[in-house]
Amino acid sequence: MPAVDIAIDIGGTKTLVSVFGDSEQEPYSSEEFPTRPAEGIDSFFERLSDICLRMKGNRNINRWGLCTAGVVSPEKGNLIWSPNLGWKDVELFRRASSFLDTKGVVENDCNAAAFGEWTFRKDIESLIYVTVSTGIGMGIVARGKVLRGANNAAGEVGHTIVKPDGPTCTCGRRGCLQAISGGRGLENRAHDLLGIEISTKEIIDRAQLNEPLFKEMITEASETLGRFLCNLIDSLDPSVLVIGGSLGKNQYYFDRILKVIEENRYRIPGKKVKVELSSMKPNPNIIGILSLSRRTHKD
Amino acid sequence: MPAVDIAIDIGGTKTLVSVFGDSEQEPYSSEEFPTRPAEGIDSFFERLSDICLRMKGNRNINRWGLCTAGVVSPEKGNLIWSPNLGWKDVELFRRASSFLDTKGVVENDCNAAAFGEWTFRKDIESLIYVTVSTGIGMGIVARGKVLRGANNAAGEVGHTIVKPDGPTCTCGRRGCLQAISGGRGLENRAHDLLGIEISTKEIIDRAQLNEPLFKEMITEASETLGRFLCNLIDSLDPSVLVIGGSLGKNQYYFDRILKVIEENRYRIPGKKVKVELSSMKPNPNIIGILSLSRRTHKD
Repeated sequence: MPAVDIAIDIGGTKTLVSVFGDSEQEPYSSEEFPTRPAEGIDSFFERLSDICLRMKGNRNINRWGLCTAGVVSPEKGNLIWSPNLGWKDVELFRRASSFLDTKGVVENDCNAAAFGEWTFRKDIESLIYVTVSTGIGMGIVARGKVLRGANNAAGEVGHTIVKPDGPTCTCGRRGCLQAISGGRGLENRAHDLLGIEISTKEIIDRAQLNEPLFKEMITEASETLGRFLCNLIDSLDPSVLVIGGSLGKNQYYFDRILKVIEENRYRIPGKKVKVELSSMKPNPNIIGILSLSRRTHKD
Repeated sequence: MPAVDIAIDIGGTKTLVSVFGDSEQEPYSSEEFPTRPAEGIDSFFERLSDICLRMKGNRNINRWGLCTAGVVSPEKGNLIWSPNLGWKDVELFRRASSFLDTKGVVENDCNAAAFGEWTFRKDIESLIYVTVSTGIGMGIVARGKVLRGANNAAGEVGHTIVKPDGPTCTCGRRGCLQAISGGRGLENRAHDLLGIEISTKEIIDRAQLNEPLFKEMITEASETLGRFLCNLIDSLDPSVLVIGGSLGKNQYYFDRILKVIEENRYRIPGKKVKVELSSMKPNPNIIGILSLSRRTHKD
């Protein structure tokens, strides 16, 4: 009976589980289920265990990887804190290995995604992955190493203040990057300005129809994010910048971000960097955490 | 006869040469001379050679290191481009090794400084060094490795645009970090506003005397730089942020930068990072390039 590798991506809304044949890059099976973090950690891991065990069937598990949003310590195997999930101090490794065996790794989801995108490309020195959806996050890989920072919190760019007099963020401060350029930020601003509940998708659709207020919002959002990314490029000189996330991958929004970057390309880092849209299936988090697990636990 | 290590720091105005006894951390001799880059590369290296050979006397050279502002490829041993010096494509390694033997290294000065500051501290994960003088530069060390970027141009933060409608920079663009918070930027703004030639030092002195215009300039400069550094901390989660350079080390200016950082400390990276003033003698570039050379060429 051949063994399988399992990759798990716990998101604030949904959790994705993918099962891979040995050394395969495409999962032969993927399933998504609601995370429902408010129901508690025990409940979540019970459901996760049931799904993983059903998906693997009677095959053995060779390796596994689990990633999630928040500050994760791969060394300790813990989720230290996740504002998305509302969880704190969760022993991810111990909990997952109780039903998945011990050859596993845990990692922050953006770090995993950056590693996935880096592995996918050949012979590049460094890569920055930026995800833009409800919030904004980042992962950095340089010379094959994930840059985690002193407290495993590198890449927390969603709350960098890019406009000190800008809109109020969910964090209570003003002018955070994701308050201007992230999905929830856009929805909150539409609500403040118009008193209506409207989804990010509809905001973009109406911007594309040239409705002035929405067009202005998307212009400001993409200008702000584009300029932020240019500064990141100047600071870190990456080989490739990959943009992912449901909002970042929206072609209309991505094209606008790219336009700002094109207009601001400057000197060597700006002129040389490649800016690309993430295209990994089922997503870069899953491929990245799989790759990290395979690198850590070689046969 | 004991052998010596030689460290060289080529700046836009002055070049510093320090000679170290074997495994000593303090130079037994240091000399500074004008770089005069406009006189040409051959002229400069002739003078450098004379000074190095005189300083070493009849001792053998064990190892050497040379750093300078600009984009340096340590692998190829070349200075690719230096706006400060106005030099391009200079074979630093070949030229220096012609009179210093072959056990040497070349590096960007901020990268060297970051490595020097990192080596000086014990057991830290990562460090960012930011130098603030005429311009603004940065070096990053993570887990003992210098982060050079895909084109050896990481750390080029002087021209990141922090205020799109800000003052015009020497590079022709508007709102670059160093146009607002660097020495030349401050001098240029004083000239534009008052039509006078005034040094950075005098601008700071007069700000300290509460002269409104100068106080306002220094407030804007330190706020802008402080906020930029906060965002860098959020993005990279360094253990320590070290501020150096003649302007950065000015206590009045440093205190103001620190105040902005203190007011904006946020979440884990911001709350945990240590912000320190560089205090290495004769300077962190020299100690850093010495340390890099000693690590590369072990006995």
